[in-house]
Amino acid sequence: MENNLQRGFPADEFEARLSRAQTLMRDAGLDALLLTTEPEIRYFTGYLTRFWESPTRPWFLLVPQAGKPVAVIPAIGEPLMRRCGLDDIRTWPSPAPDDGVSLLADTIREIAPGGRIGVPDGPETHLRMPLASFQAVAERIAPATIGGDNGILRQLRLIKSAAEIAKIERACALAGRAFARVGEIATEGVGLDTVFRRFQMLCLEEGADYVSYLAGGAGPAGYSDVISPATPEPLAKGDILMLDTGLVWDGYFCDYDRNFAIGKPDPALNDAHKILIESAHAGLQAARPGITAAELTHAMKAAMTKAGGTPSSGRFGHGLGMQLTEWPSLIEHDGTVLAENMVLTLEPGIETKDGFMLVHEENIVITAHGARPLTHFAPHSLPVI
Amino acid sequence: MENNLQRGFPADEFEARLSRAQTLMRDAGLDALLLTTEPEIRYFTGYLTRFWESPTRPWFLLVPQAGKPVAVIPAIGEPLMRRCGLDDIRTWPSPAPDDGVSLLADTIREIAPGGRIGVPDGPETHLRMPLASFQAVAERIAPATIGGDNGILRQLRLIKSAAEIAKIERACALAGRAFARVGEIATEGVGLDTVFRRFQMLCLEEGADYVSYLAGGAGPAGYSDVISPATPEPLAKGDILMLDTGLVWDGYFCDYDRNFAIGKPDPALNDAHKILIESAHAGLQAARPGITAAELTHAMKAAMTKAGGTPSSGRFGHGLGMQLTEWPSLIEHDGTVLAENMVLTLEPGIETKDGFMLVHEENIVITAHGARPLTHFAPHSLPVI
Repeated sequence: MENNLQRGFPADEFEARLSRAQTLMRDAGLDALLLTTEPEIRYFTGYLTRFWESPTRPWFLLVPQAGKPVAVIPAIGEPLMRRCGLDDIRTWPSPAPDDGVSLLADTIREIAPGGRIGVPDGPETHLRMPLASFQAVAERIAPATIGGDNGILRQLRLIKSAAEIAKIERACALAGRAFARVGEIATEGVGLDTVFRRFQMLCLEEGADYVSYLAGGAGPAGYSDVISPATPEPLAKGDILMLDTGLVWDGYFCDYDRNFAIGKPDPALNDAHKILIESAHAGLQAARPGITAAELTHAMKAAMTKAGGTPSSGRFGHGLGMQLTEWPSLIEHDGTVLAENMVLTLEPGIETKDGFMLVHEENIVITAHGARPLTHFAPHSLPVI
Repeated sequence: MENNLQRGFPADEFEARLSRAQTLMRDAGLDALLLTTEPEIRYFTGYLTRFWESPTRPWFLLVPQAGKPVAVIPAIGEPLMRRCGLDDIRTWPSPAPDDGVSLLADTIREIAPGGRIGVPDGPETHLRMPLASFQAVAERIAPATIGGDNGILRQLRLIKSAAEIAKIERACALAGRAFARVGEIATEGVGLDTVFRRFQMLCLEEGADYVSYLAGGAGPAGYSDVISPATPEPLAKGDILMLDTGLVWDGYFCDYDRNFAIGKPDPALNDAHKILIESAHAGLQAARPGITAAELTHAMKAAMTKAGGTPSSGRFGHGLGMQLTEWPSLIEHDGTVLAENMVLTLEPGIETKDGFMLVHEENIVITAHGARPLTHFAPHSLPVI
């Protein structure tokens, strides 16, 4: 099935994204968007490279209210950006003392003279360029002004296309095949750091392009946090092992986890795991267009509480796509209204004892009348390895 | 040897970093530094997690002119930050509507009332927080003001400690073992995308914590750029394959590459490779405290030109450490004066024919009177696989 999935996107995908953006820009009275981060620039161009790992060079994309985007980028990126179908690519030999400031300011003055320029400035965004350069550009483009993007990028990226969903689903499938093989690499006596290393190898062997994220934990009562690096501490009989991966296929992430029992688990932990799975299923049942992220959160927490569990303090899921985590958040005060083709993680956490927890995560897509799983939901009982 | 290298740092490492920072802050008249990015915060705390992959939450570290740093972070990060030895950790349940703005502003008002706050704002930096939040904080802390950090973070991070150099050297050694095994995974008929996947597996098998960067290329005349993703195009007899990796061990990168000939290479390309290696050796010979990055660049280009090669247009190397690329740049106009314990890549590129090139890269550390290789410099002749 998804093994024949094509990389990249047909050109009309980018035309549709641009058209939606320009409609929103007109409504907001914005003459151009100035974009500086990897997902923002990739959203409009398909420009996909791991070179963003280097912080040296700033990259800019200008989206005018009419016409195609204009790239203002380091010369090293020109061959790849050329293949993205842009007509107007302006380059400078970066790094350099001015490093794009003059070229960017000149280009803004040309395509949106005296206009209103929007940059994403809301939650989960940042400006990927030196602050001093940003201030210099803002001064040089006067009387044009730079303000927020009115949440346009967020609004656009919240809703995925069918092609995007297919890529996320493929990433999920690859991780699923790696999760199915955890018994090969994780047994009593193996250090958690070795498990992490070998699990990344499994993800690659199963077809991931790269493994941008792996977290997890292990212990007899679960784990105290889910962001600390793995230690050499060996897995012990009775431990619950959790692995949470964000692997990437063609620029799109999955983000989900699986728990495993090293030997026969404590029945109380197995019960806690069952409650987690039920909470995720409650989320899948509740998720549909028209309810809010807060309402979905509430449904998952209510199912957990009803089954006798205590929800942990973290969020219960989030958006997913070109980034490991995206808007919205499944928290009690996120009023984002769910809509068809949003991709979400359902990530219930349950307290086990003083400072420990279990966390479980699945990925879903909102459909016209409900939601569809992108992952094969885990069984209720902890798999024993 | 380096197999027994300890993870983390002794506490006095962070005391020394803080002390140097505070001296520079006093000289610059700064009352506190506000830090928002992963390497900046890790530099003063050792806070190491892959959780930065999630863009959702902002993280803040305040470095006062006297006393220990103060962390203002999402609650999810508290257990790990606790283990970093900070006394003052303030948290909020992120994500949240205000998302740290009030807590950060209150903390700045408390530790540097009416003071001058510095944020890194120069080349290769960015502000990792929503721009609107930054503007809100700036307003709320008045009469305190936020300006640049006077290049303090750059100045500090340019010079590595012995412990940092040991970690980078270990990353280099792990990649070296993976490069030595490329013949196992890359042969005629294998797609470049498969080679990329398998090379990352080799890096992990040899002990990398993760492989944050892999780039490369392959073709009969070299490659046209070094940042494009790998395609399924199979390796063919006569191709030159290049793999360039930034793998990570305990939070520190190596960054170097190796070229391989698929079958017997075109003698002209083997000659070009020899000139590249000579250029790298010329860099190793020239590198020492007191010369500038520009002068080192010139030495490498002069060696290449003298041997009949045409330097490619990119930079000829850069700094290296907690990030894949750091200051300075080996370009003709970077006047950074080299000093003991700077870690650099030497990365000469040579034109082969119309739009194609070969690139070679090694890692070195500047010593009291010269430079020491951190990688085993490649042989002059292309290894044939």
